[in-house]
Amino acid sequence: MQKQKHGSSKKLNQLQQRIDFIKAIDALKDVQRKAYLLSESRFENSAEHSWAVATFALTLADYAKSGVDINRVIHMLLLHDIVEVDAGVTFCYDDKGHEDKAEREQAAADRIFGLLPEPQAKEFRAIWDEFEAEESDTAQFAAALDRMIPLIHNLNTSGRAWKENSVSYAQIFSKNKKIERACPSLWDYVHSRIQQAVTDGWIPESSICGAQLGTV
Amino acid sequence: MQKQKHGSSKKLNQLQQRIDFIKAIDALKDVQRKAYLLSESRFENSAEHSWAVATFALTLADYAKSGVDINRVIHMLLLHDIVEVDAGVTFCYDDKGHEDKAEREQAAADRIFGLLPEPQAKEFRAIWDEFEAEESDTAQFAAALDRMIPLIHNLNTSGRAWKENSVSYAQIFSKNKKIERACPSLWDYVHSRIQQAVTDGWIPESSICGAQLGTV
Ligand SMILES: [Ca+2]
Repeated sequence: MQKQKHGSSKKLNQLQQRIDFIKAIDALKDVQRKAYLLSESRFENSAEHSWAVATFALTLADYAKSGVDINRVIHMLLLHDIVEVDAGVTFCYDDKGHEDKAEREQAAADRIFGLLPEPQAKEFRAIWDEFEAEESDTAQFAAALDRMIPLIHNLNTSGRAWKENSVSYAQIFSKNKKIERACPSLWDYVHSRIQQAVTDGWIPESSICGAQLGTV
Repeated sequence: MQKQKHGSSKKLNQLQQRIDFIKAIDALKDVQRKAYLLSESRFENSAEHSWAVATFALTLADYAKSGVDINRVIHMLLLHDIVEVDAGVTFCYDDKGHEDKAEREQAAADRIFGLLPEPQAKEFRAIWDEFEAEESDTAQFAAALDRMIPLIHNLNTSGRAWKENSVSYAQIFSKNKKIERACPSLWDYVHSRIQQAVTDGWIPESSICGAQLGTV
């Protein structure tokens, strides 16, 4: 009886820890990205971005290499940005912000995943660590989709966020070319549209201080 | 050669259809729900809600009955609200809005899932139909989590959305008691907190025109 009571209060406690985790990550809805909604009504936040990219993974499952675990891709994408609750967003073309990004995000992961009971805290952290490392085919596919989404947004809003942040073709190419290793046909599709945007004059080939097109 | 060309243009066409689907459902980020963020900074939108509830499913996987396919639960929750892009949100306590809800949402599902190539259009529609029917254990678990999320939001914002919409305990009880069939321990947890909210005076036991507590 004592034992059962202990067991059921432990279970209730674990449920409360899981709900506390969900409550903590609700703050991701207040984290603003440098990307416009397709409606251009406002900037996108990291929570709705996470939904969009997870749904994109479900939609593009057929484009993954054999051996990619598409459900693990979805789990990665649901969890991939929650460290931003503490660490904030680092714009992908902000080289200075990237200097301490890893350190800030590791501390955030320690705190936020640490809200969960074990072994779930370790399981979720392992999902996030695998995504961050970009070594497995599964993580590389997830990362490719995460890169694709802002490209789709920019290509369908006349490059608005690119223009506002003076991003050049050379920068876009060097940050996104990794899409190719995970899915060549996705890269072919999006790269030809980025080149068209240069031709159409939305984005400069290279920024004044940035790398030359030939060197990326 | 002709055949290969045809095959590769068909493949490119299918990729474009999938991207058109993702572009169409981006509008879910502009669909506003009658629920506050936990930060209370603004109302929640249906895209970020979909992320939260899919992540909640991943977090509460251990609470599902054996036989529930947790990945299918996550797929359901990623897709469950996209019909709102055309059909709008129907507040769960708006009985009048529910009169034509099914009709509006079926038409929306026809259009939006119809953007996808076959067989994916049928597969996604089947996921959404299964969720809507709430017959399988998998759909009942997904629906229970979808009901849990606004309860958690209200219970952590002093019942703000409940108060603003004059929602009574009797209404909350009758709309949410179905959580129990999918997961008794979740219902026990949340029901005791709802009863506490009545005791604390956040919500009336019943509304003037609503059902009496004894009759629900
Ligand atoms: Ca919902």
